[in-house]
Amino acid sequence: MPKPLTLHPDRLFPAEPRTRDIARALYASVKDLPIVSPHGHTDPRWFAYDEPFANPAELLIVPDHYVFRMLFSQGVKLEELGVPTVDGSPTASDPRAIWHIFAANYHLFRGTPSRMWLDWVFAEAFGIDVRLEAETADHYYDIIDAALKTPAFRPRALFDRYNIEVIATTEGPLDPLDHHRAIRASDWNGKVVTAYRPDPVLDPDDPKFIANVQRFCAIAGEDAASFAGYLRAHEKRRADFRAAGATSTDHGHPSAFTANLPRAEIEALYVKVTSGPVSAADAELFRGHMLTEMARMSIADGMVMQLHPGVHRNHNAAVLARFGKDKGADIPTAGEFVKALKPLLDLYGTDPRLTLILFTLDEDVYSRELAPLAGHYPALKLGPPWWFHDSPEGMRRFRERATETGGFYNTVGFNDDTRAFLSIPARHDVARRMDCGWLAQLVVEHRMEEDEAFEVARALAYDLVKQAYKL
Amino acid sequence: MPKPLTLHPDRLFPAEPRTRDIARALYASVKDLPIVSPHGHTDPRWFAYDEPFANPAELLIVPDHYVFRMLFSQGVKLEELGVPTVDGSPTASDPRAIWHIFAANYHLFRGTPSRMWLDWVFAEAFGIDVRLEAETADHYYDIIDAALKTPAFRPRALFDRYNIEVIATTEGPLDPLDHHRAIRASDWNGKVVTAYRPDPVLDPDDPKFIANVQRFCAIAGEDAASFAGYLRAHEKRRADFRAAGATSTDHGHPSAFTANLPRAEIEALYVKVTSGPVSAADAELFRGHMLTEMARMSIADGMVMQLHPGVHRNHNAAVLARFGKDKGADIPTAGEFVKALKPLLDLYGTDPRLTLILFTLDEDVYSRELAPLAGHYPALKLGPPWWFHDSPEGMRRFRERATETGGFYNTVGFNDDTRAFLSIPARHDVARRMDCGWLAQLVVEHRMEEDEAFEVARALAYDLVKQAYKL
Amino acid sequence: MPKPLTLHPDRLFPAEPRTRDIARALYASVKDLPIVSPHGHTDPRWFAYDEPFANPAELLIVPDHYVFRMLFSQGVKLEELGVPTVDGSPTASDPRAIWHIFAANYHLFRGTPSRMWLDWVFAEAFGIDVRLEAETADHYYDIIDAALKTPAFRPRALFDRYNIEVIATTEGPLDPLDHHRAIRASDWNGKVVTAYRPDPVLDPDDPKFIANVQRFCAIAGEDAASFAGYLRAHEKRRADFRAAGATSTDHGHPSAFTANLPRAEIEALYVKVTSGPVSAADAELFRGHMLTEMARMSIADGMVMQLHPGVHRNHNAAVLARFGKDKGADIPTAGEFVKALKPLLDLYGTDPRLTLILFTLDEDVYSRELAPLAGHYPALKLGPPWWFHDSPEGMRRFRERATETGGFYNTVGFNDDTRAFLSIPARHDVARRMDCGWLAQLVVEHRMEEDEAFEVARALAYDLVKQAYKL
Repeated sequence: MPKPLTLHPDRLFPAEPRTRDIARALYASVKDLPIVSPHGHTDPRWFAYDEPFANPAELLIVPDHYVFRMLFSQGVKLEELGVPTVDGSPTASDPRAIWHIFAANYHLFRGTPSRMWLDWVFAEAFGIDVRLEAETADHYYDIIDAALKTPAFRPRALFDRYNIEVIATTEGPLDPLDHHRAIRASDWNGKVVTAYRPDPVLDPDDPKFIANVQRFCAIAGEDAASFAGYLRAHEKRRADFRAAGATSTDHGHPSAFTANLPRAEIEALYVKVTSGPVSAADAELFRGHMLTEMARMSIADGMVMQLHPGVHRNHNAAVLARFGKDKGADIPTAGEFVKALKPLLDLYGTDPRLTLILFTLDEDVYSRELAPLAGHYPALKLGPPWWFHDSPEGMRRFRERATETGGFYNTVGFNDDTRAFLSIPARHDVARRMDCGWLAQLVVEHRMEEDEAFEVARALAYDLVKQAYKL
Repeated sequence: MPKPLTLHPDRLFPAEPRTRDIARALYASVKDLPIVSPHGHTDPRWFAYDEPFANPAELLIVPDHYVFRMLFSQGVKLEELGVPTVDGSPTASDPRAIWHIFAANYHLFRGTPSRMWLDWVFAEAFGIDVRLEAETADHYYDIIDAALKTPAFRPRALFDRYNIEVIATTEGPLDPLDHHRAIRASDWNGKVVTAYRPDPVLDPDDPKFIANVQRFCAIAGEDAASFAGYLRAHEKRRADFRAAGATSTDHGHPSAFTANLPRAEIEALYVKVTSGPVSAADAELFRGHMLTEMARMSIADGMVMQLHPGVHRNHNAAVLARFGKDKGADIPTAGEFVKALKPLLDLYGTDPRLTLILFTLDEDVYSRELAPLAGHYPALKLGPPWWFHDSPEGMRRFRERATETGGFYNTVGFNDDTRAFLSIPARHDVARRMDCGWLAQLVVEHRMEEDEAFEVARALAYDLVKQAYKL
Repeated sequence: MPKPLTLHPDRLFPAEPRTRDIARALYASVKDLPIVSPHGHTDPRWFAYDEPFANPAELLIVPDHYVFRMLFSQGVKLEELGVPTVDGSPTASDPRAIWHIFAANYHLFRGTPSRMWLDWVFAEAFGIDVRLEAETADHYYDIIDAALKTPAFRPRALFDRYNIEVIATTEGPLDPLDHHRAIRASDWNGKVVTAYRPDPVLDPDDPKFIANVQRFCAIAGEDAASFAGYLRAHEKRRADFRAAGATSTDHGHPSAFTANLPRAEIEALYVKVTSGPVSAADAELFRGHMLTEMARMSIADGMVMQLHPGVHRNHNAAVLARFGKDKGADIPTAGEFVKALKPLLDLYGTDPRLTLILFTLDEDVYSRELAPLAGHYPALKLGPPWWFHDSPEGMRRFRERATETGGFYNTVGFNDDTRAFLSIPARHDVARRMDCGWLAQLVVEHRMEEDEAFEVARALAYDLVKQAYKL
């Protein structure tokens, strides 16, 4: 007898009855607001060509590093999950068999946000009413597989059903933006924009950096031999991205380090980093200076900057060699923003034309560094809890630690930051519920008036993100 | 129709009814205890000459960096708020216009302690019963401005009304202490004491350090050319401060670093730092050694030491250049106390005559370093949550993280640490409410007996601060 | 009139009534499960010879650094508490007088876990029904002293009464394991196993390191002059320990640093560290490499590794000189695991035969480093909150911060880690109560289904520890 799957209407709300009542009321006022998704990793091809998703495993397991990292940590091999290898050597190819492994291990996700997102997808997107476990694996597979073959589960239909007002994808500086062009050329009205993520041409530690810069300048018709040409290439590509709807750039640096080198020095450094292997210090210096250049360009062209620092990428050498990047082995490291950002802030921190949105995986800096910085500098805003902290407890800690010094109005609403398209409403829903629960606590403890909590709830769910990202 | 302004009698208490009941009872037992304010930045001139405060903006906005940093972070210029410039170039001078900007932006303070302190001042001190917003700005201005012209709003009258048993100001080592002398010479009985903050003559990184030391030794009638003379100058000035009621010293160093140099080395270092520009390392070494000297003197003269480390002061270069220090651009940095304090603790950590009260803006060290240190060394005590953490959430985190290892009796009650005189009762009230709420939770979870919670509530509100600061 | 001492049946459960109801039900399902104590510091002599404990002070105060560190921090001298000195100079020897000091200062423990553990021992183990304070000191002393003379308070009787399924002690690499042999040779059936803690022969900073290595190799019949002999000595001693029931090793390094040196380099380093004084860097390198060797041996012999890094041991120089090690002056330091563990993980992190259980005293790394690492690497598991964090708040923070990324199944249940034998059930009880309270909150917030919470409660109390430690 399978166990029921239910999404309780009060989920994530505080238990105390009066607090829960207020949370319910606040949530009711924001739950149907459209989704504004200013930063994420959905594939623009989905929206450009509207093809069906392949099967349950390809949709929900194989590409989701949250899912396969947990299975891997408990001894499931990535091969068994069908994760493709770098050299093309075969891995599991039967999606139903992959699904069975997942189902048999679903208890591992107890207490994790993945469990909540997945249950939402199962219940809300697919209408399944029993819990996933080994016994119900086939039932699940059959329902999902059948649904994916229907028009209602094509990307554009889901986009509309999910009430998405706008979604941003993220493209690299070498991307031709063809898919975005196709979306705009189509008769579909969904608003899908790109974002400019120039890491591959900013980071000398990227193994392909030099080739990337060559191609980048070639695309832009600029001379890769000179720093001036390289900068103009950025300006041109930023214009290309803006033409594809971009209102933001994104920067995934190892640290928040910034620099402001004299022209002669950065020109010499550019020659160095584009000529051959460089020291770690030179690579850091180049990235740091280029963040400052990006801020300068943002002031000129109005694009909002996002900084996502502090991850040791691809920590597991064996997994990297066999399966490549982004396979659930990225591990956060300690962060520092106060010294790191000073060179950039000395130049542009008080400029009203700049918006620089800061993210971190080091929660210690919320109260120590980020809220104090954002509570002072006009250019700075705080991004929502990111990645491992995109979770109920992570959201609670963020509000508890950042609000008192940074306030609500130096934050920018929610980012789903995901490639797991089906889970997007679930993720926004978690954020709305957690924010309403937090506001309800402020109200019931008489730290905020109820009418103000309604205003703030709406700001956190909808207004602030549109304003900060200019969407 | 303006919205009502009310201070709910249950504000800041936990929502759960039984817990709230216990919190209410605990709070009722401490709410009327006199205020003991052992560390702060009120101006002794207020109490010496008892002149009226100028106007609402001069009282509540222009000098309050909590207030103008938040407005600045959202694009309000310091010029518009009448913050004076270094070079005397004019800024906004119409206090009513400044007040209007503040009122129109009052929503920015939602969720911050400033909002709670200000609402208390509006409702309790001035008896205003509508919420501050653009529409009520003039109403507020008129009421406050009129009140400030009355005798009831003179500093001494407020001091008495606020039930302040004793308040400490903070003066630099070059201060003639005239205002404190004037207070003592007056017929007023309020107890206002000073505290010795020798940073300007301990910190070689202070641009005026050498001149400060010269003047310092001259005031004391000692020879600035010798380290022995410099030390004697400290001893004499400490005696001067004790004569003005001081029971404590305060040290605002960049880090908690201490050192214990052999006499020949510190004498040579003294010559170096008083002769010209020094390296960052030498400056740190001098400061670190002098903390240890201060501890030695404290053992001799009984003054309690306070250490407030870990702030990157005046982070915004443009604001520093135009408006000077202390303009809301101080940002905390990561702290380390275990290695840093060892030289001092090796000498004096077990000496029962020393009390060294530690503060931090890096909350990570509460459970990792500070509570373990204070839970061992007889000389160490933990100061209350400081500055950005003088807030409901900050207080909760402090108790949650420091109590289990440090206990209650290695803490020292509350510091308001403010120059915002009108808000002092509001700040103590927040601390008393939060502590009672935390104790109520311990009681309701059967982690503490109720009779013991009453004793601890009183200790946290009144007894511990008097004992630790010898007031 | 003495105050009553009661252990409330709902202690440590959340206050909110529905949450408390669920917590009660969960707790009822796990409270009588046997105690599995996989890591601790009880003395195997107790179980080998079953002699009575000496007196209340010798049992509960003199050996308990949690207790005497708090008293010391408030000015009680270790001499007054009868803590023995290094040089044998006498300290207080009247156990009743020591007990009186403790009783008079018992209020210092308010809000600490020691208070809860001690009250449990008083009420549950000794049946005392009044609170400890100066007035009841003799009453307590008499009852406890009398009880200790009865057979029911002999170690084996307590072991049985406490429903201990298995307990691990910790022995050094030079230990002859005679007491463990005596336990096995006796007619008593209690399961007491050892654990291999080779720090004294892994740490060149140990003042006796070279002599230790000599003796270690002599015990094993291996040649201390060669690294190969030294490694074989480890292999032999590990086998000896396994014969005494050990299923785990334990490593108390200053940091989590690991290294993987080429054979020639480690052989040269071995010669260096066993020849005379070495640099801090060489000592760290040797320890780091040896952790990796220990992992290799664990893969071969199946012993589970435990790593307890990040303590500045014996911080108080005066206390160290007079009273020796482990006298309540150990202070945590900041931790780093991401870079530190990479050399070891690159070799063995994905090997299903290795289990490496990580502990920390730096709570910041729970969400930033440890949960992400354990949520990826098959070899890694997270130990429970350790030492200063073995407390209600510490447990709450651990679950809040580690669960969402690491899940429940990458944790290993509870460790009491204590030499305070009488308090062992109290400590496990706190953990079970806190875990049930946390699970109840997940249930009432509809983040977990109730039937799943029962499964997880049992896993946290019993299943996971047996599985992870192979007990």
